[in-house]
Amino acid sequence: MSDETPGTVYLVGSGPGDPGLLTVRARDLLSEADVVLHDKLPGPEILDLVPEDRREDVGKRAGGERTPQAETNSRLVDHARAGRDVVRLKGGDPFVFGRGGEEMEHLAREGVPFEVVPGVTSAVGAPGVAGVPVTHRDHASAVTVVTGHEDPEKDDSALDWTALAALVDAGGTLVVLMGVGHLPDYAAALRDAGLPADLPLAVVERGTWPDHRTVVGTLETAVETRDEADVEPPAVVVIGEVAATRERVVEQLGGRGGDGGADGG
Amino acid sequence: MSDETPGTVYLVGSGPGDPGLLTVRARDLLSEADVVLHDKLPGPEILDLVPEDRREDVGKRAGGERTPQAETNSRLVDHARAGRDVVRLKGGDPFVFGRGGEEMEHLAREGVPFEVVPGVTSAVGAPGVAGVPVTHRDHASAVTVVTGHEDPEKDDSALDWTALAALVDAGGTLVVLMGVGHLPDYAAALRDAGLPADLPLAVVERGTWPDHRTVVGTLETAVETRDEADVEPPAVVVIGEVAATRERVVEQLGGRGGDGGADGG
Repeated sequence: MSDETPGTVYLVGSGPGDPGLLTVRARDLLSEADVVLHDKLPGPEILDLVPEDRREDVGKRAGGERTPQAETNSRLVDHARAGRDVVRLKGGDPFVFGRGGEEMEHLAREGVPFEVVPGVTSAVGAPGVAGVPVTHRDHASAVTVVTGHEDPEKDDSALDWTALAALVDAGGTLVVLMGVGHLPDYAAALRDAGLPADLPLAVVERGTWPDHRTVVGTLETAVETRDEADVEPPAVVVIGEVAATRERVVEQLGGRGGDGGADGG
Repeated sequence: MSDETPGTVYLVGSGPGDPGLLTVRARDLLSEADVVLHDKLPGPEILDLVPEDRREDVGKRAGGERTPQAETNSRLVDHARAGRDVVRLKGGDPFVFGRGGEEMEHLAREGVPFEVVPGVTSAVGAPGVAGVPVTHRDHASAVTVVTGHEDPEKDDSALDWTALAALVDAGGTLVVLMGVGHLPDYAAALRDAGLPADLPLAVVERGTWPDHRTVVGTLETAVETRDEADVEPPAVVVIGEVAATRERVVEQLGGRGGDGGADGG
């Protein structure tokens, strides 16, 4: 460790991508921090707020493989020990997937001071702006968030789709982050677990970004809906009665959720 | 309807209470809106940002009963039709409980233009700042949010605690908003459904407020922990392995999550 007073690491959520949905604290920290470690998920509008000479991309590297988590952990510690204040910027919220918990525990073990600055999670904010409320007094008394992004080091069976289906069946909403690629697999698993074919489903692509799109279908038509619209990541999938809300409200809906996108409302 | 151009209603989340966790867009709208309809949940620091002559409290009225939802809906429409831009300010996120979905549908039916401005949900942000990550690669692959605040007009059985317990058992985290009053009921229901006595549980009281406190116990000791610390609403309860994280990190934890509160770390 150097003789310098150690810096602080700020674990910061960027929100779903609209710079207006950064928190006040996040925006201040982005302009003050000595260095910002990030991947691509915060989106271009937010990354553009940080001068390039203070940015360090710890996402995909040339060749396509991800920077190993251990390397990111080490860089956070090294920067702080060199006296730098570091923002570790995560898409959405740092603790809704995205491995913020591991980074926090590493910092604690290494004795590095840190602070958590939560963000608007894409699981709630991206559908919300598009007119899909993840809970609703009449339709949804619980909301569950999972990730559809398979972790190659993790056993597939980590998600119990039967238990998830039971919760939806009992009136809950299911939100799948990074939900595009494995949509055929989990839509089938949920149907097999007994959820009805006509259960509403909404796919919010690049939610809150300028080129956002939302398409609405059902559990049965989900794959067809995705393929016809050629939906690409990043996208959030919402499964449950609330997914049908958008069509009832989109005419009056402004901001980055209205039908300025390609879905025609 | 008057001849004026109608105003816009902004359904805005305040975040958990720290003004630094307002979004940039929320803070701008609070200073620009003609009128701000709110209850007590955003907390004193955020409400103090709005001059009193532009605030309208639609929470508890003198006598203690709540303003009926139909009345709040009407006021939103009336203000907009009189040409006023209205912020409907909700604690946390407008669509994570809090009846934002109903208000949005009412505005759409009445032809009033609106926009959704999501906030940092207290379900994620309050525990996060206190060092409790609601998901974790090693411990939690799903997070479910419910409310412990019984709606007197709603059938109690709306929540299926057996299905919720199954999800926790499969490695999920359960977050209970407004979770203090009914803690004995649902802790017992989760134990009856087979969750282990030593399952970690954290109670975050007034998360991100200057006088925040966090206490950690287990499913078995939950009621005792609550009573000994004399925890009061508003509080968020987190149930699952992740609740034990705080004790491993609190020494290095700064901001409004550290042990500046009354829990002694």
